[in-house]
Amino acid sequence: MVDRDRVGWRHLAGRYSGNMLSNKSKFNLVQIKGTWIRQSEQCQLAEGKLSGAKIYENQSDHGVSWTVVSPIVFTYRVTQCRNLLDPTNDTLLWGHLGDEEPQGAISSSSKPVRRFVVIDETVNRLYGSQVTQYFEHRQTVYKILPLPATEENKCLELVTRILEEIHEFGVDRRSEPIIAIGGGVCLDVVGLAASLYRRRTPYIRVPTTLLSYVDASVGAKTGVNFAGGKNKLGSYVPPVATFLDRSFFRTLPPRQISNGMAEMLKMALMKHRGLFELLEAEGGKLLRSKLQSCESDTSSEQEDSATASTRIAIETMLEELAPNLWEDDLDRLVDFGHLISPELEMTVLPALLHGEAVNIDMSFMVYVAHQKGLLTAEEKGRITQCMLGLGLPVWHRDCTLALVQKSLKERLKHCAGSLRMPLPTGLGRAEIFHDLIEDDVLCQVFQKWTDELASTGN
Amino acid sequence: MVDRDRVGWRHLAGRYSGNMLSNKSKFNLVQIKGTWIRQSEQCQLAEGKLSGAKIYENQSDHGVSWTVVSPIVFTYRVTQCRNLLDPTNDTLLWGHLGDEEPQGAISSSSKPVRRFVVIDETVNRLYGSQVTQYFEHRQTVYKILPLPATEENKCLELVTRILEEIHEFGVDRRSEPIIAIGGGVCLDVVGLAASLYRRRTPYIRVPTTLLSYVDASVGAKTGVNFAGGKNKLGSYVPPVATFLDRSFFRTLPPRQISNGMAEMLKMALMKHRGLFELLEAEGGKLLRSKLQSCESDTSSEQEDSATASTRIAIETMLEELAPNLWEDDLDRLVDFGHLISPELEMTVLPALLHGEAVNIDMSFMVYVAHQKGLLTAEEKGRITQCMLGLGLPVWHRDCTLALVQKSLKERLKHCAGSLRMPLPTGLGRAEIFHDLIEDDVLCQVFQKWTDELASTGN
Repeated sequence: MVDRDRVGWRHLAGRYSGNMLSNKSKFNLVQIKGTWIRQSEQCQLAEGKLSGAKIYENQSDHGVSWTVVSPIVFTYRVTQCRNLLDPTNDTLLWGHLGDEEPQGAISSSSKPVRRFVVIDETVNRLYGSQVTQYFEHRQTVYKILPLPATEENKCLELVTRILEEIHEFGVDRRSEPIIAIGGGVCLDVVGLAASLYRRRTPYIRVPTTLLSYVDASVGAKTGVNFAGGKNKLGSYVPPVATFLDRSFFRTLPPRQISNGMAEMLKMALMKHRGLFELLEAEGGKLLRSKLQSCESDTSSEQEDSATASTRIAIETMLEELAPNLWEDDLDRLVDFGHLISPELEMTVLPALLHGEAVNIDMSFMVYVAHQKGLLTAEEKGRITQCMLGLGLPVWHRDCTLALVQKSLKERLKHCAGSLRMPLPTGLGRAEIFHDLIEDDVLCQVFQKWTDELASTGN
Repeated sequence: MVDRDRVGWRHLAGRYSGNMLSNKSKFNLVQIKGTWIRQSEQCQLAEGKLSGAKIYENQSDHGVSWTVVSPIVFTYRVTQCRNLLDPTNDTLLWGHLGDEEPQGAISSSSKPVRRFVVIDETVNRLYGSQVTQYFEHRQTVYKILPLPATEENKCLELVTRILEEIHEFGVDRRSEPIIAIGGGVCLDVVGLAASLYRRRTPYIRVPTTLLSYVDASVGAKTGVNFAGGKNKLGSYVPPVATFLDRSFFRTLPPRQISNGMAEMLKMALMKHRGLFELLEAEGGKLLRSKLQSCESDTSSEQEDSATASTRIAIETMLEELAPNLWEDDLDRLVDFGHLISPELEMTVLPALLHGEAVNIDMSFMVYVAHQKGLLTAEEKGRITQCMLGLGLPVWHRDCTLALVQKSLKERLKHCAGSLRMPLPTGLGRAEIFHDLIEDDVLCQVFQKWTDELASTGN
């Protein structure tokens, strides 16, 4: 360890000048009695806690340049559970803590348990009294904030409103996670508010729609719309936990079930033939049952189709998101269905739901894949039929050729000059394609898509 | 590799049920032809790119729980340079790129180079024409946005204003970093705007005050004030680069130099006796020269005191920040001077500058350290004299005992029930203390501090 305590500054400056000869150095960081000390790799003099961070120093005539490389590890939990709002179930209060964490110590301490809850207005009408009963029964100090969390309201003002209420209620940033109960808009907006408050306050996601269950819940993204752009503002801060309870789906209108099916189908088409075949065979039944398991199913040895399909959708999504939480890699299979749909969705808002716009995008891309020889006509037909069977639109009058062209141009701009277009290369497998689609090819595909599918649509 | 393509879903669901016997599994993530596949640790079947992320799966009667552990690596560069605004110096445009990155390819491409620049209004009055000349001479497409970046204006509205202008100008999130030129407020506000825009847009910090040079520039924090609380909202997203040019200090009023010296003194007291002795011996000279190097100094073998002191301040700061970029560890030496000062600063705003409030806090804490037997009376005296020599206040009438008590109570609340108080344990060394200070002891210290130092102050 360099003993910096005993040297006068002249001596010290001299010593550093001497180092100028070696103009590039790499330093590890070691913590000794609460103080971090940098140590060159060649010269490890003291023992202590070693950090994963490194500092590279480059000395030149112009001065010194330091490059800091610092890893941050995000850990979050996605948990399937039943009866989340049953007062005897402590998941909502404590399920975010690991098995090894002293939950007992916290829950039995003299301080009352406090929770700030944001709930979508519609969800509040349906489940508000259950939520209140839950927190009353658990003797929690709580504040429930119902919000009109619609796509049209998904803006910075809503974030500010939540922040003001959080600030007034007061939360302990270490031990009192903010709870969001609702669909994707609610979860995205609360996630952004929580990630901003004191630079990061833990939050919990409780999705109540199928779409948010399989999509918004499992990654790190938060966001709001801005200046007419979808999710233009946001952050990549995952929740501490997501609690998945399918019983919320019972009160969803059928169109909302189909809406979520689109994102499940996306994962099926990109990477899981088994899931595709399940949706193809049982889509209608899943829609009608609203993905509820029958009592007889749960006791059987085999997973029922509702349990299997949602589990596989989550698992495949986590596979793709976990290695790329901050989207540093631009090649993303999960972008399938999301090249044209943002533009379409913002154009026709609120006529199309997110999953519907995604499905129209996917339907078009299936035609592109067929045109490129990646899918057979039979496969294209099966996929289209599956989409229709899930109650999803496969074509839309406002999804014009001009809109498609504009969207792909935008994509090109945002993806460093490459389209990075995920396309199916069979049922349940896919690749990313970088090359442009020539305009006449695009016209042809668009024409064929319209000829074959316009009759299905609006 | 599990061949998921060939199994019908019934078969597949059955297979998964069979796995229920082993209820805990750890999965690595491997990328094969663009698709991420999870593989259990025991059963590595395919070769591909291995991710640092892991997924842990826990199956129980209630359902499945996945824990995602995903590391994100932040890399940023802090570069000392001269003549940053000289049109022949390409640091401002390209200094954020690593040596290995194809700067030539980008700068010589047919697309014009575009930069969005936010500059503090005062800095713009002094350097605006130089900045304009720089971008004109480099034939850049640019937009310069001057902002009244004062502590009173440091709010979400200013962030929104920047975001609107960024959106109107349009930036390529991959290759067109936003440049912030100004003091800490400007850098914090622009950093927050950039971190929100499209969930993260790269930005560059050019500090023009000594305070922001040694403090706001080198870490990841961005922020704005909210609901009367200092930096209540923000993010931890480092800039891609910080360019440090001391020539900006020439136009600073002397009080602003002292303001920055406070943060340098903080690092000296916490971890570098050499820096303390330098500030003690040469503080007055550094103030008068505004930390400019004389021509004769730069040609000598030895570093001059301005170069040495700023370099050591940055190095010690990076040592403490790099291993704790997201402040997951609550034990932070850099919090010295920041326990009472936020409350004091917000109370007397704008009477005290940040560094002045920090110094009053440090001055009080030196008395606490002396009371606890950590510092001798002589050391306490030397530190106080050094502070006065740097033109810094060591006492303030609005720093009342009530304010001190309230601040420590807040600290206790925010730091999970421990004070985590960094205190000097000698000159240039420190430790974190967790135990409470009893009220009568605090009273005594406060009385002594006031008795000895009130005469110096206001």
